[in-house]
Amino acid sequence: MPENQKKLVIIGLGTGGMHTIRAAQKKDRSIDITVIERRSYDMFSPCGLPYAVGKRIEDFEALKHTVPSTRRLHKLLSHEATEINRETKTVTVKDLETGMEKKLPYDKLVIATGSHPRVLRIPGAEKLIGKGIHVVSNPENARRLQEAAEKSKRAFIIGGGAVGLEIGAALKELGLEVGITKKSLPPFPNSLDPDMGEKIIEFVDKCGCNLFFGLGIDSINGTDHVESVTVDGETIPTDIVVMAVGVQPEISLAEKAGLRIEKGAVWTDERMQTSDPDIYALGECALTYSGIDKTPMKIDLATTAYKQAVVGGANAAGGDERYLGTFGTFVSFVGDLEVASTGFNTETAMDHGFQVVSGRANLTNKPDYMPGATEVSVKIIVDIASGRVLGGQAVGEEGAAWRVNMIALAVMQGMTIEEFSKVELAYCPAVSELYDPLQASVDVALRRLEIARKKN
Amino acid sequence: MPENQKKLVIIGLGTGGMHTIRAAQKKDRSIDITVIERRSYDMFSPCGLPYAVGKRIEDFEALKHTVPSTRRLHKLLSHEATEINRETKTVTVKDLETGMEKKLPYDKLVIATGSHPRVLRIPGAEKLIGKGIHVVSNPENARRLQEAAEKSKRAFIIGGGAVGLEIGAALKELGLEVGITKKSLPPFPNSLDPDMGEKIIEFVDKCGCNLFFGLGIDSINGTDHVESVTVDGETIPTDIVVMAVGVQPEISLAEKAGLRIEKGAVWTDERMQTSDPDIYALGECALTYSGIDKTPMKIDLATTAYKQAVVGGANAAGGDERYLGTFGTFVSFVGDLEVASTGFNTETAMDHGFQVVSGRANLTNKPDYMPGATEVSVKIIVDIASGRVLGGQAVGEEGAAWRVNMIALAVMQGMTIEEFSKVELAYCPAVSELYDPLQASVDVALRRLEIARKKN
Repeated sequence: MPENQKKLVIIGLGTGGMHTIRAAQKKDRSIDITVIERRSYDMFSPCGLPYAVGKRIEDFEALKHTVPSTRRLHKLLSHEATEINRETKTVTVKDLETGMEKKLPYDKLVIATGSHPRVLRIPGAEKLIGKGIHVVSNPENARRLQEAAEKSKRAFIIGGGAVGLEIGAALKELGLEVGITKKSLPPFPNSLDPDMGEKIIEFVDKCGCNLFFGLGIDSINGTDHVESVTVDGETIPTDIVVMAVGVQPEISLAEKAGLRIEKGAVWTDERMQTSDPDIYALGECALTYSGIDKTPMKIDLATTAYKQAVVGGANAAGGDERYLGTFGTFVSFVGDLEVASTGFNTETAMDHGFQVVSGRANLTNKPDYMPGATEVSVKIIVDIASGRVLGGQAVGEEGAAWRVNMIALAVMQGMTIEEFSKVELAYCPAVSELYDPLQASVDVALRRLEIARKKN
Repeated sequence: MPENQKKLVIIGLGTGGMHTIRAAQKKDRSIDITVIERRSYDMFSPCGLPYAVGKRIEDFEALKHTVPSTRRLHKLLSHEATEINRETKTVTVKDLETGMEKKLPYDKLVIATGSHPRVLRIPGAEKLIGKGIHVVSNPENARRLQEAAEKSKRAFIIGGGAVGLEIGAALKELGLEVGITKKSLPPFPNSLDPDMGEKIIEFVDKCGCNLFFGLGIDSINGTDHVESVTVDGETIPTDIVVMAVGVQPEISLAEKAGLRIEKGAVWTDERMQTSDPDIYALGECALTYSGIDKTPMKIDLATTAYKQAVVGGANAAGGDERYLGTFGTFVSFVGDLEVASTGFNTETAMDHGFQVVSGRANLTNKPDYMPGATEVSVKIIVDIASGRVLGGQAVGEEGAAWRVNMIALAVMQGMTIEEFSKVELAYCPAVSELYDPLQASVDVALRRLEIARKKN
């Protein structure tokens, strides 16, 4: 087969799979692509699910979208990849409707199988699955949660990460009484410093959710259906339990094929190659590394999957791109609060061997004489030795994400806080503040850096 | 006098003067500062005036704010600096209430005198000043315009820059019929490419303003009061004329003192020093240079004044900071449209000797299934030879400014478009789009850069 009709097979049509298609086609217009997906429809936006549950988006169908088939793009929907044979370079595929199997040859294979929701083994949980215990990972189970919510008065969320808080806020908007439990006390402990997490607790509390943070869940109780949960010895009646305790990489195919697995995910190098040079992995099933210090890292974000697919897709099509690593840049929208972060927080930075100072500022996003001005809290983390910006966090009803994006760019470029402090920001009172909270946080960090350096 | 009681005199308490105070105090806590200001009150936000005229801000008084006096900060309000004597190192100051004069000694002097509105010599204008012809430069004249507008049906704006368009939109919101004329055809010709300017014309047109762009104004007509304007031979009845044709640096004191003047502004070096090493100048009265290629540049933006004051204020207090130069990062809010830009546009870049490609994308700021999703148009300008990002522009109802801020950081750092393309942006459908219009514009520019380089 001539070079220009290379066969690329992609397992999984999520964000990673879709952007792999785009990147591969961009690199090599003539490439022949087959993508295998278990679902009967193309794609959906998982990050939109909480807003559909809470009816900010009117219809779950709106979350679905189609990747058009072309002469050189074959979509095998309702198909499951059951085996990768690295010797014959084939993938065995099962048609989920007919049960028929076939083998697909590949020149290059991309594993973009994503993840599945993690389920906690809590006493009482097993027998009540499907009887009041919900997970939210696709339009079908999200819709089931919404239908159940419409017939219920009380819900209890296990998990206080992005999905847990977003779903909690959504169910509150539907009129339910909502409790949220979370084992660790501070929200987003890997992304936010505790003082920034405090802002979220305040906000969610103000929304009227009952928070049980820092408390373990003892059991889920009920005979035929969920009736209550027991948290730290206290029994709390509830009709619904939502388990939102993160995801588990879907690596069974890769594992069976003997690919290198590390930290429960498919190991990849800077070209997104697995231990087999003809196989790439990306997205939530893949282990990559931090963009700051190249230490192994796995991030469950669409952003990461997309950036990895740009590299992996191009390379699978004959390119030679390098992945910079992930910075974990994210934003969650909880009720009406933007929660965003990038890079290392204080604790993570210290775990990675950095000595840091931080600067924080709480200021309005516009002059307070402008209607609609709201406070944004911004925090920036700086390495004392090099002065390099290592990360940033922001919380506020408007503009947290973009301030964090600015910091993400500084972190990626290895900019020092002195360099970053010079940036010229666009000002108009109807849109922004002359002395922006971002700039203020930078100035605080600069002062603290000076003090820390004098001490050393 | 000991080193730690240095006398700093600042002429002008605008954005430049205020941030000079802050920067000088930060550098040297013991510095003795006197600031001279003609107004009887401290400060106001000039950029907020259009929104007060249009009643989005309820009261002009809200735009005023006070810089607290301290033992080492003396404010001479209602005072005018009438002469700088460089030999004796004194400033002559006149008390505008009593007419009394005194001489203030200085160790270092900062000229932050700003600018005054430019007035066009149009036939008929001179005799109608104060009789229907308005300028907007302070709360007093802005209030007079508002009062006149409340008794009028029709207004005509001469000038289609930020102030002209913002005031035009404000008067439209007050219910007037509004015409706007502007000599050059494209809006913001020094900042936006014509295709981006087109978006503004569409928007302002949709707001119901009558645009006369690319047409000169022949005369302002009326006997005791403005009755009409003649534009390109056509007579258009109006009750009010607003002149918004830019500003003129206030340099008379500097000129009389024999400081080097260039392009109508006070020349400064990278320390914000004038031709006299004991005198600094900053803000709208100062000539600095482009942050991209160090060519002379004068920018009338609060952002610029602020950034220059951080440098000039610190240096006047004994520091040794360098000004990076200006990038002209700005945002204007016209009606409900953010118009933002940074660095060079295509024409300016070419004038400065660059060969460029650009990338542009029009996409929604959030997925279109999210309520409130609106289109943002982003354009990025790239130097073909180096791949360096030279500038960017964005127009949209939400998020134009922050996308331009991201580009501003890239321009300041001299980043290539390849480097910039890797940035990880925070994604959550309630806040942003996974494939952001900014990223899309970058991808287009990358493709065009590749094509341009193949051609060369």
